[in-house]
Parts: sequence; C-alpha cells; structure tokens
Amino acid sequence: MDEPVYTYTQLERFALSIFEKIGCPPEQGKLATEVLLSADLRGIDSHGIARLSGYVRLWNKKRVNSTPNIRIVHESPSTAVVDGDGGLGLVVAPAAMEIAIEKAKLAGTGWVSVKNSNHFGIAGYHAMMALKHDMIGMAMTNASPLVAPTFSVERLLGTNPIAVAIPADQQPAFVADFATTTAANGKLEILQRKNLAAPVGWVQTKTGMPSTDPNEAKSGGALIPLGSDREHGSHKGFCLGAWVDIFSAVLSGANYGPWVPPFVAFLDPPSDPVGEGIGHFFGAMRVDAFRPANEFKSHMDNWISRFRKAKTIEGEERVIIPGDPEREMEKLRRKDGIPINPKVVEDLKELATTFSLKF
Amino acid sequence: MDEPVYTYTQLERFALSIFEKIGCPPEQGKLATEVLLSADLRGIDSHGIARLSGYVRLWNKKRVNSTPNIRIVHESPSTAVVDGDGGLGLVVAPAAMEIAIEKAKLAGTGWVSVKNSNHFGIAGYHAMMALKHDMIGMAMTNASPLVAPTFSVERLLGTNPIAVAIPADQQPAFVADFATTTAANGKLEILQRKNLAAPVGWVQTKTGMPSTDPNEAKSGGALIPLGSDREHGSHKGFCLGAWVDIFSAVLSGANYGPWVPPFVAFLDPPSDPVGEGIGHFFGAMRVDAFRPANEFKSHMDNWISRFRKAKTIEGEERVIIPGDPEREMEKLRRKDGIPINPKVVEDLKELATTFSLKF
Repeated sequence: MDEPVYTYTQLERFALSIFEKIGCPPEQGKLATEVLLSADLRGIDSHGIARLSGYVRLWNKKRVNSTPNIRIVHESPSTAVVDGDGGLGLVVAPAAMEIAIEKAKLAGTGWVSVKNSNHFGIAGYHAMMALKHDMIGMAMTNASPLVAPTFSVERLLGTNPIAVAIPADQQPAFVADFATTTAANGKLEILQRKNLAAPVGWVQTKTGMPSTDPNEAKSGGALIPLGSDREHGSHKGFCLGAWVDIFSAVLSGANYGPWVPPFVAFLDPPSDPVGEGIGHFFGAMRVDAFRPANEFKSHMDNWISRFRKAKTIEGEERVIIPGDPEREMEKLRRKDGIPINPKVVEDLKELATTFSLKF
Repeated sequence: MDEPVYTYTQLERFALSIFEKIGCPPEQGKLATEVLLSADLRGIDSHGIARLSGYVRLWNKKRVNSTPNIRIVHESPSTAVVDGDGGLGLVVAPAAMEIAIEKAKLAGTGWVSVKNSNHFGIAGYHAMMALKHDMIGMAMTNASPLVAPTFSVERLLGTNPIAVAIPADQQPAFVADFATTTAANGKLEILQRKNLAAPVGWVQTKTGMPSTDPNEAKSGGALIPLGSDREHGSHKGFCLGAWVDIFSAVLSGANYGPWVPPFVAFLDPPSDPVGEGIGHFFGAMRVDAFRPANEFKSHMDNWISRFRKAKTIEGEERVIIPGDPEREMEKLRRKDGIPINPKVVEDLKELATTFSLKF
C-alpha cells in the first residue's frame, strides 16, 4: 500500500490549525505541534500526527483542557510536583521539563513529577530539551494499562517508556528512548495493519498463554514486559515499568497502575480514580555539577566512537548507538518528506472536514 | 551435592577477621562485612562471602587500598563526585550513598557519581539505605566487560545492575535490584557448577552465535543484554547497560566500557585506562520533596497490594513484588542459617589457612 508523502510544513500547518480550533493559545498550539511532529520526523509514527484525532476526541469529551493553568504545587531546591491542570501532555511535559532544567541550573539537578496530564508524545523530545544546556535529560511517563506483570493475566501497567539523553561533543548525543515492554504498542499496530504475526514473547492471551496474534490486547490479552518471559528476565522489564509508574504517578498524585485513564476517548476512565490524570517524571542533571563539561563531553565522544566501531556479528552492518536511527530518519524526512499511512490520512481528512479545514 | 550451613554470626566473624588481616580499620571492616553478607542473606550468593577471597587477591596485587581516603572532589547542592581512593567498593559505596542522603536532606535529592572504586557487593544494599529516611534510593555500578551490545561480538559492558528502593507504609518496601542482562552472571555460575545448559538468549559464542553453553564468556563469548535478541528488545537492555556505564563512570571519571578493570586478580587491568578504577552512581530522593511522606507511602501500600493480588496465570502462585523473594530469603536464612557451596567452603578454608584463621 503506497503511503502519501507530506512535507513537514504541510503537517505543521494542519496540526497548528487543529490545535487552534480546539482553543489552544497560539504559543501552546505551536509547542504541541512541534512535540507531536517530532515523532513523525524521528520515525516513531505511532506517536505523531496519527494521534492528532485522538487528542481532539478527548477534548470533545472534555477530557483535555486546552487552556490549562500549569503550575508547581510542591517543591524543594531540586524537585517539583507540577499540576498539568488536565492540559495536553504535549504542552504540560515541556513546561515541566523546563522547570527541571531551571532547578538544575541552581541545584545541580532538577526532578519534576507531574500529575493531571495526558499523553505527552515521545519521551525523547522532552529528554533532549536538556542537551543544549549541557545537561543530561530524562523523561518517563505512565500510560493506560496494556501490560501484564510477569505471571499475571491482568493488565496493570502501560508501556511506560524511559528516555535518557546525554550530550557529547563532536559525536551526536546519546539518546535512548524505549518502551519498557518487549515491543512498543506502535510495533504491534504495524503488524495489525499488515496482517502479520508477532514474534512469540511480545503478547499473551487473556489467560496468559504465549501468542503471535498482534491483536491480543484488544481481546483481553496483554503486552509483555521487556524480557519476554521469566526465564529471560521479564521480571526485570516489570521492575522498569513499575519504577516508571511510581516515579510518574505515586510521587506526583496521578493515577497509577490499572487506574491510569485510557488515551482512547471511547473508553471511560476508571470510576474510582486514585489520583488525577496520568503522570510523568522528568530529570535534568547539569554535567558540570559532576565534572567540567568539556571533559565529560570528550569522554562521551570516546565512549560513543568506541562502541560505534565495535566488531560486529557477521552479516550485521554496525553496532547502533542509541539515537542513531532516529537522527538519520529525521535528516531523511526533513529532506524527502514524511510518508503517512493511508488509514491515518483518511482519519486526518475526516478531522479536516469536521473543522472546515483542508488536508 | 550437600551444602554446609553456617550461621550469619559464623560468616560475620570470619569476614571481619579477614578484613582486619588485610588492614581495614575496624569500622570499615565491619561495614564491608555487613554489605558483603547482605548478599548471602538475600540469596544472591554470587555477590556475598563467595567473593571474599577475590577481594583479598586484589589486595595482594595492591589493587585494593585497605585504608582509603574517601572524599568529595566536586559538588553542587544536589550532586557530588566521590573519589574512592581505590578502596573496597563495599566501603566506598555506602560512604557515597550517605553523601547522597545528606544532599537530599537539604536539596530534596542527592546524586553521587563515584570513581576509583571496586566491586561494591549488591546494589540493593546501597539503595535500601535510603528507606529509613523516607527516601527513594537508587544504586548502579559498572563492572568488567562481559556483555556484547546488540550486533557486537565484542564485550564492551558489564552486567551493570540497577537497584531502586521505594518506601511504603504497612507493606514492605519495593526493592528492585537486577543486572541489565538477560541473566546475571551468578545465574550462569550456578549452571556451570551443575553442568547444565543455559536457555538460548543468555549467552552468545565468540562469533556472536546463539549458544546454550554457560561457559561461553570464558572462551571469548559474551552475555547478552536484557531482551535476548534484537527482535525481543536486546537493544533496550543495551541502552540500560550503557546508561549505567555512563552515569557511573563518564560522569565521575572512572573507567568505562571495555576499559573497566576486571574483578579477578589473575587478569590485569587494561594498560590504557580512560579513568580511575570502576564507577558507581547513587541517588536519594526525599519523598516529601514531592508530596507528604504519609500520602506517598499510603499510595505505595495501595500500589503494592493491588499488584500483589493480581490474577495469576494458571499454575503460577502469585505476582512477585520486587524485593519479595529476597526479603523472604533473608528471614529464612537469619533463622535457619546460610548454605554455602562446597567449592566456596573450600576456597574459604584455604583463605583461613593463609591468614592462620579457622573456617
């Protein structure tokens, strides 16, 4: 199936118009657009423009506040809890990350836990905000429950990603950004669209049996924590997902575990919330709070180039430094445009019609 | 093979004597013993008394300083770099964690990167030091290279564990402590002793092919990052191991990647070091720097009990909360004693003879 290609500017204009239509102040609409489209640029198509109509549907249901009063509700020299006031995660998250960065300027590090937020796009965007300040950035978020802990048939965690961005000097930054499951939900969506089987270890049936059906999570099954099974360390993936959940939501006062409200508007949030909205966690660490930044960055160059030139297994091209594929994709897509899945195009055209716009 | 059982006190007395014999000041010997034996108590036998002779052999080679001047060499309100002065990691690590805790008291959080240290025992011990202060504790360390990044045949990372300890109220604390590989090296050692095969996905041959031989790492092969293979997310395990390496060593000025000196004394450290000793990273976060501690802890109780009572897959007894098995093991072993592998007993008897002691 051919994928129509759009320029960044085309997608940007459309997203800006939509955010304007749902009442976002211009600055917030601009930011939300930039965060959202950073996913399309970096090749994480599941988290970009494909989600635009999802945000609008939440707004329709009054589950997104387009004019949030994002504010600190608790703080110490190196920490803060931010109330996102039900705003778009795309806007709440960068605001919270800015607070972490400001804290780090004074205290060496800054750590911000966020409640009352919503889907924040790709974690990597927020972590990377730290780089230009010669800081290490971290970002995590919880998400609606799709993942079963080891030995559980119940879905109690989201795919709860972690991003860590670390500056270098001549080398591009180290940017890890990954779901704490064997495979991100976006990878399953690709298989669903193509009608392909998933590798064993990605999903389980509703009784917890191994499965290769990428649709399992739609019929009571679950995604599996990184590790695939107990023998291969899925309990460690569970630890990671749990850690993200607790830092994002138990520290801030958001919903956690099975209480996290779903992103999709056709599912109602749990009727017995344990907190407000979904939660995120951000960190910024000033490199020179540990050692002179030039020293650190030159050793990062050495680290990266040593790993990049590692001898590979026969048939494999190279050892991939975290962030390489996404940076290369961004370069390509800025030049050649961004291919959009036909089903997503259809969805966006419908969205355009609703708001008397063109796509 | 029957394993002789020793009481905690027997092992404690012996370890204390050994640390005294190699010249540790009494307070440091006491601390080193406590940290070392916490591994035996918690059932992580590979990191406990089994390693005692390894430390002594390093000391014999003048690669451990038994009277270190452990000191802060760089700091900010929420951070510090600690020079371990070549001391036992068992002593350097708790000293650094104490600094993180003191920083957190004033700044909300404390983050300490350590250089010029050595094997620090189990990460969980250090992370758990935070609990009694109503703080979340974190501990990481790099280690000698045994792990091949995804697509690499070269061993460039250690098993680089991460520990996160989170206090609760009525429930026992959440304590995750895991190697960022599919299986910890200690698990391979057990298979080696029992002459059993390893599951596919734990190790690879020296050309990077799948293997079930638990001895692979002894003949040029490698351990595999959590995830087992690319399709199941081993690149994420690589990200985790890399993150630990960079926070522990590039931030502090320790050796990183393939330059990390080996724990075993019969292998010389690399002749072209990029830093000093091995590195660790510690964090302490005051819970009430985010929200009132009683609120946080009561939600942790709720989190833990909800996950603990998750519906299990048929045939599985329960969903395991991180820290449960180790806490249960400690209770058992404090009561019934600690079984020690006969080969380790032999090794300890030899050590006793060397120092005119009894074991």
